[in-house]
Amino acid sequence: MSRSSIDLTAFFKLSYGLYIVSAGVGEKKSGCVVNTVTQVTAVPERLAVTVNKDNYTCELIQQSGFFVATVLTQDAGMDLIGLFGFRSGRDEDKFSQVDEAVDGNGMPYVLNHAAALFSCKVCQTVDLGTHLMFIGDVTEARHLADGEVLTYAYYHAVKKGGTPKNAPSYKGEETAAPKEEPASDKKTVWRCTICGYLAEMEELPADFICPICKKDASFFVKV
Amino acid sequence: MSRSSIDLTAFFKLSYGLYIVSAGVGEKKSGCVVNTVTQVTAVPERLAVTVNKDNYTCELIQQSGFFVATVLTQDAGMDLIGLFGFRSGRDEDKFSQVDEAVDGNGMPYVLNHAAALFSCKVCQTVDLGTHLMFIGDVTEARHLADGEVLTYAYYHAVKKGGTPKNAPSYKGEETAAPKEEPASDKKTVWRCTICGYLAEMEELPADFICPICKKDASFFVKV
Repeated sequence: MSRSSIDLTAFFKLSYGLYIVSAGVGEKKSGCVVNTVTQVTAVPERLAVTVNKDNYTCELIQQSGFFVATVLTQDAGMDLIGLFGFRSGRDEDKFSQVDEAVDGNGMPYVLNHAAALFSCKVCQTVDLGTHLMFIGDVTEARHLADGEVLTYAYYHAVKKGGTPKNAPSYKGEETAAPKEEPASDKKTVWRCTICGYLAEMEELPADFICPICKKDASFFVKV
Repeated sequence: MSRSSIDLTAFFKLSYGLYIVSAGVGEKKSGCVVNTVTQVTAVPERLAVTVNKDNYTCELIQQSGFFVATVLTQDAGMDLIGLFGFRSGRDEDKFSQVDEAVDGNGMPYVLNHAAALFSCKVCQTVDLGTHLMFIGDVTEARHLADGEVLTYAYYHAVKKGGTPKNAPSYKGEETAAPKEEPASDKKTVWRCTICGYLAEMEELPADFICPICKKDASFFVKV
């Protein structure tokens, strides 16, 4: 095979939801946004989730042997997605900034914008190189809210969010999913290359910090 | 855990696309509709797909060590989905009824309603009990058509299709995704409990055969 036979835009045709996967060990706890939750068997009910090895959540799932996957509702905001999708639980306690609950396995999870919850006990771990896939027996499944769930397509198209570098679907800045340009009203817009946040201002102050992912002004480009 | 802690309606909140996965060995070839294609790593590009062990396609992927995943476009009809989703490649040559092509690995795939194509070489096989998960290095990825792709949610809501019994997301007839009732215009409607096909007629003939999945009248219920 040659690299030329891989058209990265083909990968945009895959459909996903958006989820927060979380785990904890004692006082340590973390969660991250992923798009890779799938049911893999019905008898027994089993879910698979793929998490980057660099993510703190990955470490905590390995240590605890459990995880929780919550399905995000369509109205989940970029504040929640930024916190769990673009920041690290090693640097801050993400759960102190949201409504936290604890499942029957003692695992923390986020109640905010949760459409459903799956408590899982890891039964297999698959090493994929950069990522680990955890396959979990579902010990509890709950429907928490009606209404539309957040899909990855909606996230990109409507919320204009970016893809975390740790996501399996990350394609690099050059080939990131096409962004619609803002309406041509002569205003200058700066886009955070990490999370996709758009700041509408003539000049971006040197000490500007992205309100979503907390990266500095050097990560912004004029669009 | 007790069964009462598992609310099967929670699983309807998971988002998926719809795909045809195919493979062949010599003259033998088959494909099936799945909802479980996900990208699991970006470097290298790897996809995972989960297939029921009873499916002929599963056998052919194991024997060949390769598979093709094509992404279905939203306008894919129930004829194509019925053929690849509810019938077996052991009973008929599915490819003789569609536009077939062969990828660089010698694997057959379906050109009809294909939005993108991924040719994959199996690098890991995970035994999940009822299903096998194949993890494949992507050897070729191609964007074939623009426009909307078919999601599992759209399939249920708009095409009113059922869930194949072999799918990881199959919940049994009692708990299947809620179907909207047809407009109350006094007409009698029969629904195929296998594929969801709706037949509008006063009496269902005893020799009636579902045009989608080819099951007989005994599989129909009045709705």
